[in-house]
Amino acid sequence: MPANSSRSLKAPAYPSRTCLAIVLAAGNGKRMRSKLPKAMHKLAGRSMLGHVLSAVAKAGADKIVVVVGPDQGALEAEARLIVPDVELVIQAERRGTAHAVLAAREAIAAGYDDIIVAFADTPLVQPETFSKMRIALAAGETAIVCLGFEAKDPTGYGRLIMKDGVLESIREDRDANPDERKLSTCNAGLMGIAGRHALDLLGAIGCENSQREYYLTDIVAIARAQKLASCALIVQQDEVMGVNDRAQLALAEALMQSRLRTQAMSLGATLVDPESVTLAYDTTLGEDVTIEPHVVFGPGVEVKTGALIRSFSHLEGANVGENATVGPFARLRPGARLMQEVHIGNFVEVKASEVGAGAKINHLSYIGDASVGAKSNLGAGTITCNYDGFAKYRTEIGEGAFIGSHSALVAPVAIGAGAYVATGSVVTRDVLPDSLVVARARQTEKPGWAAGFRQKKRKS
Amino acid sequence: MPANSSRSLKAPAYPSRTCLAIVLAAGNGKRMRSKLPKAMHKLAGRSMLGHVLSAVAKAGADKIVVVVGPDQGALEAEARLIVPDVELVIQAERRGTAHAVLAAREAIAAGYDDIIVAFADTPLVQPETFSKMRIALAAGETAIVCLGFEAKDPTGYGRLIMKDGVLESIREDRDANPDERKLSTCNAGLMGIAGRHALDLLGAIGCENSQREYYLTDIVAIARAQKLASCALIVQQDEVMGVNDRAQLALAEALMQSRLRTQAMSLGATLVDPESVTLAYDTTLGEDVTIEPHVVFGPGVEVKTGALIRSFSHLEGANVGENATVGPFARLRPGARLMQEVHIGNFVEVKASEVGAGAKINHLSYIGDASVGAKSNLGAGTITCNYDGFAKYRTEIGEGAFIGSHSALVAPVAIGAGAYVATGSVVTRDVLPDSLVVARARQTEKPGWAAGFRQKKRKS
Amino acid sequence: MPANSSRSLKAPAYPSRTCLAIVLAAGNGKRMRSKLPKAMHKLAGRSMLGHVLSAVAKAGADKIVVVVGPDQGALEAEARLIVPDVELVIQAERRGTAHAVLAAREAIAAGYDDIIVAFADTPLVQPETFSKMRIALAAGETAIVCLGFEAKDPTGYGRLIMKDGVLESIREDRDANPDERKLSTCNAGLMGIAGRHALDLLGAIGCENSQREYYLTDIVAIARAQKLASCALIVQQDEVMGVNDRAQLALAEALMQSRLRTQAMSLGATLVDPESVTLAYDTTLGEDVTIEPHVVFGPGVEVKTGALIRSFSHLEGANVGENATVGPFARLRPGARLMQEVHIGNFVEVKASEVGAGAKINHLSYIGDASVGAKSNLGAGTITCNYDGFAKYRTEIGEGAFIGSHSALVAPVAIGAGAYVATGSVVTRDVLPDSLVVARARQTEKPGWAAGFRQKKRKS
Repeated sequence: MPANSSRSLKAPAYPSRTCLAIVLAAGNGKRMRSKLPKAMHKLAGRSMLGHVLSAVAKAGADKIVVVVGPDQGALEAEARLIVPDVELVIQAERRGTAHAVLAAREAIAAGYDDIIVAFADTPLVQPETFSKMRIALAAGETAIVCLGFEAKDPTGYGRLIMKDGVLESIREDRDANPDERKLSTCNAGLMGIAGRHALDLLGAIGCENSQREYYLTDIVAIARAQKLASCALIVQQDEVMGVNDRAQLALAEALMQSRLRTQAMSLGATLVDPESVTLAYDTTLGEDVTIEPHVVFGPGVEVKTGALIRSFSHLEGANVGENATVGPFARLRPGARLMQEVHIGNFVEVKASEVGAGAKINHLSYIGDASVGAKSNLGAGTITCNYDGFAKYRTEIGEGAFIGSHSALVAPVAIGAGAYVATGSVVTRDVLPDSLVVARARQTEKPGWAAGFRQKKRKS
Repeated sequence: MPANSSRSLKAPAYPSRTCLAIVLAAGNGKRMRSKLPKAMHKLAGRSMLGHVLSAVAKAGADKIVVVVGPDQGALEAEARLIVPDVELVIQAERRGTAHAVLAAREAIAAGYDDIIVAFADTPLVQPETFSKMRIALAAGETAIVCLGFEAKDPTGYGRLIMKDGVLESIREDRDANPDERKLSTCNAGLMGIAGRHALDLLGAIGCENSQREYYLTDIVAIARAQKLASCALIVQQDEVMGVNDRAQLALAEALMQSRLRTQAMSLGATLVDPESVTLAYDTTLGEDVTIEPHVVFGPGVEVKTGALIRSFSHLEGANVGENATVGPFARLRPGARLMQEVHIGNFVEVKASEVGAGAKINHLSYIGDASVGAKSNLGAGTITCNYDGFAKYRTEIGEGAFIGSHSALVAPVAIGAGAYVATGSVVTRDVLPDSLVVARARQTEKPGWAAGFRQKKRKS
Repeated sequence: MPANSSRSLKAPAYPSRTCLAIVLAAGNGKRMRSKLPKAMHKLAGRSMLGHVLSAVAKAGADKIVVVVGPDQGALEAEARLIVPDVELVIQAERRGTAHAVLAAREAIAAGYDDIIVAFADTPLVQPETFSKMRIALAAGETAIVCLGFEAKDPTGYGRLIMKDGVLESIREDRDANPDERKLSTCNAGLMGIAGRHALDLLGAIGCENSQREYYLTDIVAIARAQKLASCALIVQQDEVMGVNDRAQLALAEALMQSRLRTQAMSLGATLVDPESVTLAYDTTLGEDVTIEPHVVFGPGVEVKTGALIRSFSHLEGANVGENATVGPFARLRPGARLMQEVHIGNFVEVKASEVGAGAKINHLSYIGDASVGAKSNLGAGTITCNYDGFAKYRTEIGEGAFIGSHSALVAPVAIGAGAYVATGSVVTRDVLPDSLVVARARQTEKPGWAAGFRQKKRKS
């Protein structure tokens, strides 16, 4: 189980209850106009499916089943990244949400206390919300918990018909009478179901409607007919927004970024212009970290206390040590590990390399597959030549080494501690500690040549 | 006629009607505080004049006249870029909008069915809106169509005085009575005029007002006096916003960007953070193209299906092939043509060069005036030296060639297919296919030199 | 006195009055979660303390006292940067705002006409507002001027209890009766006090409240008891927002940026996408300057008329001459001085260097500690090697020199006017004017080597 989807977050309110989460991901997402299954589209560096799986896992789901369409094999690998023991079941035909849920019939029959139904295209629901749904079920007086929201404009949404705090039914917009139409409390679609009633209730849902589909929303009226109570949990509309096209994907991204930025600031990082900083779902920023405007974080970045990330920097899979400075115009790629007080300057790319404390790589450099010693200084235009067209090789730079500007280090190669590489050298063999290495041509001069050249060119 | 201002868009509602568009561009734009004529200021990579000309051309204008001030010669070249056979007439004195329109008297007298009056500083009006004005004229019952909008705050705008769907007059804010002041339907200034009445009506406009100017808005009352009907076409206020200073220019840019982003997403491109992406008026993005945050498009860019444009990329006049990857920190300048699956990485500039399928240029390179063979690999720090201070020369790199890092290719020069350039070489002569070329100095070492150097420096 | 905090701005309304400003900066800012004193956090490139000091200085303060906490020595150096003769006093215990003000008792006793109390964490108050407070005191009929604002939501704020334009008292939210709670005019905390009454009034403030603290707001009721009038000056809520955590810091930054951008546009600069441009408090942009999207200005930048700053540029402490072009992807560091019509292109860093008129440095270069002659052309990959691990040295490039691509200039070194450096040279000795210098190895070729290498690699 990956660390960030820890099941240890189980709320104390339901310590002994078991939980099955069913995540519906079979939607084909036609309006996305994409070859990718809709649930694979990303928010803050992680697929929508991944966000939903992570949230239900954090709410303590013991078993997770993802319901996919017949042509969505790509979802399996993605799901296993988050929850290795996830189960995928295929909904062969698309005959409505209740039909989709029943594709997980076998798991439902296994007898979990709580069943949560979530949607892969409703990716902003928080783990705490799923926990609250479970707490409502744990209280024992309700068989169904529907997630609802107060709609700014309820047109088109199913309304939650409530009476004295009890949810009586869910009325589709087209079936609502004028009074019901005025209700603004709407159905988000997500549901908690008491496990012991689940198969009975789901089995009773019919398809007597114009689309001949089985609608999960009918479960409330069916429960009521069986004298089972339902209730609603109301959240902000933003939390339950659905993603059906690329404009909604962009809106969901904006909402998630806003959450991530607010959290980073509350933990003590300065985001000078928060709206210009793109965070990943797992970005970790220490106290007194400063992020200047226009910085992009891909997944897997940790920035330690006091570090400064300057404008126009791009980081993925990288560690930045305490009080280090990165950018402007720096790119840290996966495996870049900067120790404390490292300086990475402009137009510098670091990949799969450790950079020791206090080392400086300030200008126009490419450092890949290298280890760079503490307090070393790499001049402008230093390039590690790590690739020969077939394999990658490593470069070792010793502590306190000085690499003159415009040098190429042809890996595999080691520069000894304290060694000095002369400007413009191409170093192909190991260099002893404390020695000077030179690999460049001698300077020769042709006086007057340039004047002649210009004269000739101007004539022609 | 440039492709993007095609007159073939003529609406079917008026197939046989002829149209004259008069674009008023004589405003001096004092509040812009600029040496440039106001109409030359740009939105989404094209001048405001260009946007208006393109819109009236798309609405089927057969003849377009631009009315300019006496000192605005720069507008002519710009206008001809969009509409080669445009006519420019000079309004010698600035005596009001009706006076400006009559600077095009000769064209008006030529007897077009529809006359459209547009403003170069009202650049967001859509072609569809001009088409609707023409459709209203084509119906035959109205001599004048005024463009109006519902104002959030009508203060300062002329009000459209309507009765039973008929436009009776346009009342300037200062002349309005308290009841009229409460009206929120305002005059945008743009107008459609039935050609057969145009000279008569325009000629009847007087200048009996405090400014001694001829106001086009008076035409409605004059038409009414002659028993000719006028009507109003109401659009969103944003569409008819005028640009008078740089803050309004920025607002118009934001509105146009919003349109362009929405359109790109609806066609199947992902814009992770749409607000951080600057599009040009003609940017073309294929399905499943992903644009990461912070990307700028200048004019003339096409990105094909499945390509990924990473953060901090800047593209102008470039083609990006299917499934290619660009950036982060890449710059594609005019004439960059990337075939499918090309990789352009960080701190790489490509100009006037074809890059063959699957080629990789991943780090710190300048490729100008070159052709780069398919599946070739250009190492970090590859530079094509295309300029000798007088002329530009071409570099040819064959298929599957491997250019070692930190190499300079001095054009004109050809690297044969499959050849291998050793790291740090300066290549000045053609290289045979499949051969190795080396042009660098031998490595020499002075053991202990660096230790001595440091000792000496520390003492001094 | 630094130029930008000129005391010459004294309003004509109070030419002969003296003024003491007391700036309270002792807040520890726990909610910032920072090791830095709260007042040291920056907005638009200057500390909050700096902004407040600059504002009170511009309003004509003759003497400025900053009240700091016992552990905030860092504030002194910062304060002296703005106001060299500033006085710092320590508030040993934190016992309320009136107690903090009385830490400046000695200065108060010196008998200034006007006393202004400002807060280092209320950094957006304009100099004009402080001036208006002084004008109100100068009128002579009021002993106290409180700064107030109309609150969107007054909950939690102290209310200004006004009667007939006279301020009767300030009621804390918790002490307000239901009628008072409905008042939306709230207390911002800043105050002007007539100097001749100040010690009397401040001395009368007690600490009979639950916190046992001395509250400055009590001064209004005390003045009233002594038949002294108070009044309120009402400003926008944004202007008096307080900064207590990093989210509020980001909001204050956004408000200040908005001010700076609006001002830059009103003075004739085009900001294509203003929200994506970060300005510093002292950025100076000339008329017809164009700033493309995504540009960051640190302090100390002046851009002259007609210059173009392209996207993804980062400027600090730099001068950009008329009609110069910078970027995209350019970094100008302190001491970069570009003359007119200079071109600085992509992935170019310029530091502490003068670049003469019309010179071009278009690609992948580092120019540090240099002077670059007019009309010279520096090729892609030009690097000045200005550092040997101990000291920095200068590079001089003469007028009209041509530096071939991929060259390293090892400082100290001088390239004569009109000289020509061959591609890929490492220049270590001075070069005569008009001569050609070459320092690179000869090209050798091994036919067929690459084919053999690939065969061998593929086998292994």
